[in-house]
Amino acid sequence: MGMDAAIGRFEELLGADAVLTAPGDLLDFRDPFWIPGDDTYAPSAVVLPSSVEEVQGVVRIANELGVPLWTTSQGRNNGYGGGSPRLGGSVTVSLRRMNQVLEVNGELAYAVVEPGVSWFDLYDAIRAGEHDLMLSVPDLGWGSVVGNSLDNGMTYLPYGTDFMAPCGMEVVLANGEVLRTGMGAMPDNKAWHLYKRGLGPVLDPFFVQSNYGIVTRMGVWLMRKPAAYAPLLLTAPRDSDLEAVVDTLRELRLERTIEGVPILFNTLIAAAMAEGGASFQADVGPMPDEQIQAMAEAIGVGRWAVRCAVWGLEGVVEARLQRIREAWGRIPGSAVIHERTYGRDEHESIEVTPDKIQAGIPNLDIIKNFDDIGHVGFSPVVALTGRDVREAVDFLRDLIEREAKANFLAGIIIGNERSCVIVTGTSFHVSDEEQVRRVYDTMQTLVRESGRRGYGEYRAHLDFMDLAADQYSFNDHAYRRFCETIKDAVDPNGILSPGRHGIWPEGMRHERVADAALSD
Amino acid sequence: MGMDAAIGRFEELLGADAVLTAPGDLLDFRDPFWIPGDDTYAPSAVVLPSSVEEVQGVVRIANELGVPLWTTSQGRNNGYGGGSPRLGGSVTVSLRRMNQVLEVNGELAYAVVEPGVSWFDLYDAIRAGEHDLMLSVPDLGWGSVVGNSLDNGMTYLPYGTDFMAPCGMEVVLANGEVLRTGMGAMPDNKAWHLYKRGLGPVLDPFFVQSNYGIVTRMGVWLMRKPAAYAPLLLTAPRDSDLEAVVDTLRELRLERTIEGVPILFNTLIAAAMAEGGASFQADVGPMPDEQIQAMAEAIGVGRWAVRCAVWGLEGVVEARLQRIREAWGRIPGSAVIHERTYGRDEHESIEVTPDKIQAGIPNLDIIKNFDDIGHVGFSPVVALTGRDVREAVDFLRDLIEREAKANFLAGIIIGNERSCVIVTGTSFHVSDEEQVRRVYDTMQTLVRESGRRGYGEYRAHLDFMDLAADQYSFNDHAYRRFCETIKDAVDPNGILSPGRHGIWPEGMRHERVADAALSD
Repeated sequence: MGMDAAIGRFEELLGADAVLTAPGDLLDFRDPFWIPGDDTYAPSAVVLPSSVEEVQGVVRIANELGVPLWTTSQGRNNGYGGGSPRLGGSVTVSLRRMNQVLEVNGELAYAVVEPGVSWFDLYDAIRAGEHDLMLSVPDLGWGSVVGNSLDNGMTYLPYGTDFMAPCGMEVVLANGEVLRTGMGAMPDNKAWHLYKRGLGPVLDPFFVQSNYGIVTRMGVWLMRKPAAYAPLLLTAPRDSDLEAVVDTLRELRLERTIEGVPILFNTLIAAAMAEGGASFQADVGPMPDEQIQAMAEAIGVGRWAVRCAVWGLEGVVEARLQRIREAWGRIPGSAVIHERTYGRDEHESIEVTPDKIQAGIPNLDIIKNFDDIGHVGFSPVVALTGRDVREAVDFLRDLIEREAKANFLAGIIIGNERSCVIVTGTSFHVSDEEQVRRVYDTMQTLVRESGRRGYGEYRAHLDFMDLAADQYSFNDHAYRRFCETIKDAVDPNGILSPGRHGIWPEGMRHERVADAALSD
Repeated sequence: MGMDAAIGRFEELLGADAVLTAPGDLLDFRDPFWIPGDDTYAPSAVVLPSSVEEVQGVVRIANELGVPLWTTSQGRNNGYGGGSPRLGGSVTVSLRRMNQVLEVNGELAYAVVEPGVSWFDLYDAIRAGEHDLMLSVPDLGWGSVVGNSLDNGMTYLPYGTDFMAPCGMEVVLANGEVLRTGMGAMPDNKAWHLYKRGLGPVLDPFFVQSNYGIVTRMGVWLMRKPAAYAPLLLTAPRDSDLEAVVDTLRELRLERTIEGVPILFNTLIAAAMAEGGASFQADVGPMPDEQIQAMAEAIGVGRWAVRCAVWGLEGVVEARLQRIREAWGRIPGSAVIHERTYGRDEHESIEVTPDKIQAGIPNLDIIKNFDDIGHVGFSPVVALTGRDVREAVDFLRDLIEREAKANFLAGIIIGNERSCVIVTGTSFHVSDEEQVRRVYDTMQTLVRESGRRGYGEYRAHLDFMDLAADQYSFNDHAYRRFCETIKDAVDPNGILSPGRHGIWPEGMRHERVADAALSD
C-alpha cells in the first residue's frame, strides 16, 4: 500500500511533528486495555491534522496511495477498543489538535465544536463565557464530545435521552470534499445547529457509528440551568426487586416525572464506582449471592440502586419528588435518598461525583483508583420491562460467572423510556495476559449467545465488532449489504475506517471475521 | 418505458381492481390544489398493493421494465403536492390498502402501523384497546401516520418535538428486498420499535424525505395519558409584540415549562382557522394593517396567538401555569387563556378543536368550510429569536402581499426549542386558473429570495421542489451530489420516486428544473 511513500506525503502536508511512527509514540493512541504487545489492532502511524483543509489533504493522499485510515477524536472509547483501528496497520487520523470551541450561543443554548474538543474543554468554555447552560456529559470527561457522540456514547442529562444533543455536522467525505448536513447545506443558513433536518434525506445519524466521512465540526445542544436540580439515589434491598424497580422506573420515565438518563447499578458496580479499583472487580469472583447481599447492606446501596435526577422549576421538582417517593415507596424496604436540591447558583458547590455528572460537570472520579484494571464492554439493548430485564440479567450473569469466572457488574442505562442498555462485560488486570485472553474469548460466546436470544449490542469492541454486526442478520444481512453498497459508492477506494461496526469496503471483505455459528 | 406491458404485469400481480388507469379514477390520487386539467404532475396509473410481498413484486416489475414509481400512503400532503408524482407519467404506488394497525403495546406505549393507516385509524385502535395512551397528531386526521412522518409533517404533542414519534422501519428497497432498520436488523430483537439506533449507521431518518426505499411498516411512540392536561391560548395585542412573544416562548421551551409543539398564529390565520373558508383568505387582500388590528380586537385573538398546552402531574401543571402567567404577563395587554384542565378520564368530553388536537384526537375541523379554497405551502426554517422571526416575517409578508396580492397568513410552528417553521404560502380558489398560476409563479420568487437570505424550506411543493433543493448549494451542492451518488448505488435503474426533494437518479437529471439565478 506504499506506506513509506504515504508517510513522506503526510509529513510534507502536515509537518514532521504531526506524523508519528515510532512505536512508543503510538502507544497513547492504542487501546489501553488490549493484550500488551499484541499488534492485531496497532496502527502503522498516527497523523495529527490541525484543520479541515489538512483533513482533506490527508484523505486525498490516502485515496491516491490506497492507504486505509482510521479516525479517532480524543481516542478514548475505553472498553470498546480505545483509539485502535479495526484493521491493523491503518494510519490513525487523530483529531486531537482540532480542539477549538467555535461558538457558545447563550441565547439559543448550543455550542459548536471541533472533534478534538473534550468534555472538559467545552465545560470550561461555557464557564468562561458565564453562560447559564449545562452540558450533558458522560461518566468520564476526557473524551471528545464529537467522538463520544459518533460512537453513541451515553450522557445523562435530558439531552442524553436518545442521543439528542448533536445537531448539524460538517463532514469531510472520502473524496476529500466538504459536506454540511441539514440546514448547513444552505449557505448562510442560521438554523444549521438549531434544526435536525434539512430538505431531503437526513444525514446526521447516518454519520454516527459509520465510516462514510470524517466529522470535523458539530453542534451540541445545551440545557438552560434550572431553578432547581435534585439528584437522587433510589435503592431496593433484594435482588428479586429488579422487576418492580424496572417497571416503576419505566412508568416514571414514560410520564416524564423522571427525565434524562437514569442508571441502575447492581451492588457490585455501585461498590466498584464508589471505591474505585476494588479487588472484586478483577480478582475475586464470582462472589456468592449471600456475600453480595451482605455487601449491599453494609454499603447501603441495596441490591439495585438508581442514579437519577430531577431538574426544573421549584414547584415542578417538588411535585415530582413527591410522586417518585410515592411510586418507589411501593417497593418494600426501598429508599429514596435525596440529600439536597441545588439552586441555579449553587452548582459551584457540588462535590459528590453523581451530583457532578448529573449537573454536567465533567470529571474522572470513577477511575481514580483503577490502577491496571481494564475492562471490555458488552452492552446489549433490552426492552424496558421487568420481565425482559430480569431475563437478560439472569442470562448475562450466569454466562459471565460461568465462562469468565468473574463477577457480574452491571450498569443498566435507561437511555430512553422504552429500552435500556445493559452495560456489562468483564474487568481484568491488563498485565495478566492469560486473564485478558480468557476474557476476550468469553466475549465471543457472549455476543453469539446474546444474538441467539435477540439481544443486540448498541456499540461493539473492535475484537468482536464483526461478530456483533453478524448478529444483525435479518434477510441474509440485508442491513449490512445495503450499508456496504453505500460504502462502495461513497468511498470506492475503501480508505475510511474499514471495518467500523462491521462495514467493510469491497476488496477488504475477506478481513471480516465471520460468525461460524451463523454460517452453519 | 413499456407502460402498457407494465400495466399488464401489474394487473397479473395485483388483480385488475388494484390497477387504476381511467383518468377519472386517478383524480383522487392527484394534488387537489393544482391547476385543474393541467397534467404536469399526473400519474399514468395507480397501483394498490395490499402486502409487503405485493410491494416487492411491483418494485421488481418496475425494475425490469424501467417504470418510474411514486410512492404515497394516504396521498394527502395538501399544500405540498398532494399524492401527485414529481415526474409526470410515473406509476403511483398507493399504500392505502396496507391499513393494518399491527400492534398497540400498552405497557411500552407504542404502536406499529402499515403505511395506509390514517391518524383516525390508529386513534380508533388505541381507543378500542382501552389503552391509556395519546397519539401526537397533525391538524388534519385523514393522512397516513407513516406518510406524514416521511414528509416531516408536524404534530403537536411532546413526541412531535423534533419528529420523535417514529421508531424502527421495515423498508422495501429498489431491488425488491426487505430491510429492517435499527434493532429490527436482528431477528427476534424486541427493541426494534423501542430504541432508535442499531449497530452501525442509523437509517430511519435516512428514509425520511428520500427516495431510497418504500417504508412498509413503522413504529410510533405514544404518550402515557397524564393526570392533568391544560390547553392554553396565549395572546399579544400588537404586531410589534412579535419579538417579545418569540423570545418568551423560546425561554419557556428551553426550560421545558412548555413542552410539545406550540403554534403561533397571526390574526388572519387564527381567524381563518376559527371561521373556516373566510373570504379574506383568497379574495380580499392584502388587507390594511388597521383592518387587521380591528379584526384582532373583534375576535379577541390579538395580533399574535399561541396555541400550546401543558401535560403532566397536577402539581407540575400548576407550577408551569403559574410560571407561564408570570412570563407572559410581562407583555403589556397580553392574555393567558386557560379555560380548563382535563383529568385523565375527561378526554371524551373535549369539544374544542385546539383542545382535541393537543389531546391527540384527530379531526378535520379546520377545513370544514373551505369549499374550493386551496393553498400552496411555503415553509422556511428560522432561528427562534425575536429578531430572526421578525426579520423573516417582514420579508415574507412584504413579498406575498406585493407579488401575490394576497394576505399574509402565518402559522409559526415551534417544532423544537431553538427553531421554528414559518408555515405560510398563499390560498386561492382552485377553480380560478389565473389566480392559481399567479400564486405558483410567486412561489418561485419566494423560494429564490428566501434562499438568498439563508431561509431553507423544511418541505417543498412538487412545483418548486428542485428550486427549493437548489438553494441548499453549499460547496457546489455537495449535499445533493452525495445523496445522488447514494441514489445511483441503491437504485441503479432510478425507479423509486425520481425527483423527490430534488434527488434525481442518473439518466433523469435533465428533468431537474435548474435555478437560473443560482447558475448565473
